[in-house]
Amino acid sequence: MPTSADATDTEGLLGAARSGDRAALARLLSLVERGGTSAREIGRRTHPLGGDAYTVGITGAPGAGKSTLTGGLIGALRATGDRVAVLAIDPTSPFSGGAILGDRVRMQEHALDDGVFIRSMATRGHLGGLALATPEAVRLLDAAGYPWILLETVGVGQVEIEVAGAADTTVVVVTPGWGDGVQAAKAGLLEVADVFVINKADRPGVAETERDLESMLEMTVRPDDGWCPPIVRATATAGEGITELLTAITDHRRWLTAGGGLERRRSARAADELRSILVERLHDRVRRAERGGALDGARAAVLERRTDPWTATDELLRRLEDGDD
Amino acid sequence: MPTSADATDTEGLLGAARSGDRAALARLLSLVERGGTSAREIGRRTHPLGGDAYTVGITGAPGAGKSTLTGGLIGALRATGDRVAVLAIDPTSPFSGGAILGDRVRMQEHALDDGVFIRSMATRGHLGGLALATPEAVRLLDAAGYPWILLETVGVGQVEIEVAGAADTTVVVVTPGWGDGVQAAKAGLLEVADVFVINKADRPGVAETERDLESMLEMTVRPDDGWCPPIVRATATAGEGITELLTAITDHRRWLTAGGGLERRRSARAADELRSILVERLHDRVRRAERGGALDGARAAVLERRTDPWTATDELLRRLEDGDD
Repeated sequence: MPTSADATDTEGLLGAARSGDRAALARLLSLVERGGTSAREIGRRTHPLGGDAYTVGITGAPGAGKSTLTGGLIGALRATGDRVAVLAIDPTSPFSGGAILGDRVRMQEHALDDGVFIRSMATRGHLGGLALATPEAVRLLDAAGYPWILLETVGVGQVEIEVAGAADTTVVVVTPGWGDGVQAAKAGLLEVADVFVINKADRPGVAETERDLESMLEMTVRPDDGWCPPIVRATATAGEGITELLTAITDHRRWLTAGGGLERRRSARAADELRSILVERLHDRVRRAERGGALDGARAAVLERRTDPWTATDELLRRLEDGDD
Repeated sequence: MPTSADATDTEGLLGAARSGDRAALARLLSLVERGGTSAREIGRRTHPLGGDAYTVGITGAPGAGKSTLTGGLIGALRATGDRVAVLAIDPTSPFSGGAILGDRVRMQEHALDDGVFIRSMATRGHLGGLALATPEAVRLLDAAGYPWILLETVGVGQVEIEVAGAADTTVVVVTPGWGDGVQAAKAGLLEVADVFVINKADRPGVAETERDLESMLEMTVRPDDGWCPPIVRATATAGEGITELLTAITDHRRWLTAGGGLERRRSARAADELRSILVERLHDRVRRAERGGALDGARAAVLERRTDPWTATDELLRRLEDGDD
């Protein structure tokens, strides 16, 4: 298999993916993960085709039952007739695909359902990291016709919270045993959560966790004022609370759409993405200068005082620009 | 007072500073701290004039007695007839000048000595931070004719260790009460130290601290192989150990110069500085695009799907290049 697809490949794969060819979609996602010119080409082609998908981020500490909850949510969405795509985001894993999904028993219920596409995603060499790879993957799934895209993170690292928090609706999963509201505050979860789920609600301590969350939320200044995140109790393994979770998500979606909040969020996200692409491309130039030996030449000239660092970087910048792809 | 100096100002100030005008030198340092075109202009002019100064970084935990030790070192260097400049580096202070130096009783001994120039330095708006401002300040002091430049940091934050560690010889100051070698290892001090000082050596625990340092050093892989950092005991308040410290510094200087290590260090530093200037200038372009509204225009076009993020950043990059100063 070639490591990059040329324009014709991409066009053919995209046409196939849009006609329901899941292998073509999976191949395109691998190219997006890898970054570079193929990912950019896919982005250019998918961007005009999308805009209809709604994204839901699902984050929370490991062991909170996020995959089981996601599995339940898939079922509830499928019951409405909608197709669903899931991206399981794992910034730590160097590999994507099979391994992680092996554990996802609840999700495997949907493995034979043509209306469900599940894929775990790492970044494999995408220099912009998940912050750039995720919106590209979402754009692709959107273009492939999935009206719901669930972004489930493996843990609650900074990157994962950013990725999940960049969804249209962000669901934060906690458990009675997980700790108090202070921990949620420290992790920055109170600011990004649109819906809280206290999962494993059959365990003791649910009421305390709910009270903790409520009192911490009262003290939190949230970016989208006017929405108070509902707290949903669930026992995902027993299928309890899933309907309530979907209701909370659709309530939030309706509120966002009616008040102009969805447009504002997407506009802010577009600016973030542009800024990230710009910074990434500029850094790429510095890396190219290093690889190409241009920096070594400049360093020698500076050390021998044939030039000064500012004149040398002027010259480097000019050369980088001429060589830009 | 204008916020930036034009070329004539800079040239005049530099001429005056090189003739021994301390007020002119102080004014130039303020311009360097502030960054921007004046700092760059000063850099261009001072770069060809220097190369003779030797820099000594002095770092360690707050309260370890670094200023007293630096004061002692000034005296020992002055006794050899050499002029000495001191930059007290404080990344946390938004101001430079008087405040911090008020505490520096030992250094004030030298306040009336024309051969000593002491100045504390923050970054006040220099967007490249201390990593860029410090080499610029060193270059200026070098051009002003100081053969010794001491870089004393206030604490042991990451930035301060980087700055002190980028000197020709780096002195790390610990105290018997400061803790064990593990702490030094954690702070990354074992890798940057060329000379250790156990200051306040009249207190109990000196032998233990020395043993700790020695055993940690044995387990440390240092970048410049072949030099084992000597450990000097000092009681700076009583003037004890200062001569031994200066001997350790000059031993290290001799070793570095003879083995080519000085050249290698300066070459690595020149590459670091070029890379930092390059990255800083590229980031500056992104900031200009944001201020100039170019990013907003691109965002609107992307949201309305008149263009895609990659074509939009292509266009932004072209415009940024045309507008580069």
